Amino acid sequence: MNETGRTREMAAGGSNFIIENEVFQLYIAHACINILKMIFVAYYTVFKRFANKTFSTKEDYEGFAATMEKDDVKKKLAECNPEVERVRSCHRNDLENIPAFLVVGLLYALTNPGVDAVSLHFRVFTLCRIIHTMSYLLPLPQPSRFLGFSVGTLSMVSMAIQTLLMGKL
Amino acid sequence: MNETGRTREMAAGGSNFIIENEVFQLYIAHACINILKMIFVAYYTVFKRFANKTFSTKEDYEGFAATMEKDDVKKKLAECNPEVERVRSCHRNDLENIPAFLVVGLLYALTNPGVDAVSLHFRVFTLCRIIHTMSYLLPLPQPSRFLGFSVGTLSMVSMAIQTLLMGKL
Amino acid sequence: MNETGRTREMAAGGSNFIIENEVFQLYIAHACINILKMIFVAYYTVFKRFANKTFSTKEDYEGFAATMEKDDVKKKLAECNPEVERVRSCHRNDLENIPAFLVVGLLYALTNPGVDAVSLHFRVFTLCRIIHTMSYLLPLPQPSRFLGFSVGTLSMVSMAIQTLLMGKL
Repeated sequence: MNETGRTREMAAGGSNFIIENEVFQLYIAHACINILKMIFVAYYTVFKRFANKTFSTKEDYEGFAATMEKDDVKKKLAECNPEVERVRSCHRNDLENIPAFLVVGLLYALTNPGVDAVSLHFRVFTLCRIIHTMSYLLPLPQPSRFLGFSVGTLSMVSMAIQTLLMGKL
Repeated sequence: MNETGRTREMAAGGSNFIIENEVFQLYIAHACINILKMIFVAYYTVFKRFANKTFSTKEDYEGFAATMEKDDVKKKLAECNPEVERVRSCHRNDLENIPAFLVVGLLYALTNPGVDAVSLHFRVFTLCRIIHTMSYLLPLPQPSRFLGFSVGTLSMVSMAIQTLLMGKL
Repeated sequence: MNETGRTREMAAGGSNFIIENEVFQLYIAHACINILKMIFVAYYTVFKRFANKTFSTKEDYEGFAATMEKDDVKKKLAECNPEVERVRSCHRNDLENIPAFLVVGLLYALTNPGVDAVSLHFRVFTLCRIIHTMSYLLPLPQPSRFLGFSVGTLSMVSMAIQTLLMGKL
């Protein structure tokens, strides 16, 4: 292929060399798994809200529980349902970890650490997130949730420090 | 341009071929719109806090409502203002969706799905986020907020599954 | 190097030209600093939970405070500990800002604005996040936290608007 041809292919094709790279295939898979897991938790909150008839606003009760008495709605809005709050806490912990992983995982992959190192860090993180979610939602006795959280963040800290060494403040 | 010349341009220019790509122009626009929308919600929370004189810490009351009685501050800190909480819930839903979109949208664009498919997914997501925010803040009756949330996540799930197929666990 | 050689190096090497670019070295450093700061806040929450024996679920009390009376556990679960909530609020503000910065900072760097402009935006943002965290956790009197938050978001808005101009809806 000539120069112009390749430049054009890159411009049109959106960095095919990224997709063909094994490290990026790992990144793509783990990023999507974690995002899909997080969206599952979002829908599980919706499910728990309907199962417990516990919503967050007045218009939710009007739309989804129209037969409920006004006093009951007021009471429900003032208190928290522990089942719904459990899923929300689980979701919040995802928000504290997954978006950071999505970026630090990509940057770490760009520093060329080798497929095995990338694979180890990504698998540990994803497995820990799944353990964390299961520990929260089933629930499992501690310290399973704590281990899921802390080992997952250690994988992130390891990636962040290795990446930071390639950077410049 | 010769080999060295192009390599140098890439190194110096920060991947101009990415910027010239129509799919990335779509990504850049939708990413920024969603981020700006989210920052708007953050400032709307600040506005609602000042409008309702409802802050989250003791030092906020000392700094921004110095004339308020100590007992009133204590009472205000112990309770939640529904107007402020509404904006915070809206913001939290953004946090549950927009950072994930920012990554999955980029990865999906990298898988070369064609401009039309990218455009459709991004427009649906952004439109749904705007509908969701308006439904929460005006507010609009349900199921407008629920549709904004669920159709937006469906767009993300579609992108994540298509991207995942290019990956490797 | 011949064509095939370079293509192969790019495929194997994961975009070395990105790593060798000064703008990306800035991005990498600031991204990692902000992520590590956010993970520090996560662990500080854990520390405050243990220091105040205040956990979020029944199984936490069973696992980490087994000697506590059942009635005390129930009471503790129903109320909020202000020290723990302070760290959680600080963390939430990070979630509202850092993931958005991680994406908009990268996109802004890709638009080729020059090293000085990138460096200014990134340093302002990172410094503001550190000021915000210190203001929340020490705490410092207002308006230090408000300035940390608002100047940091202004840096993001500036980057987002400049990037948006390169995009296409």
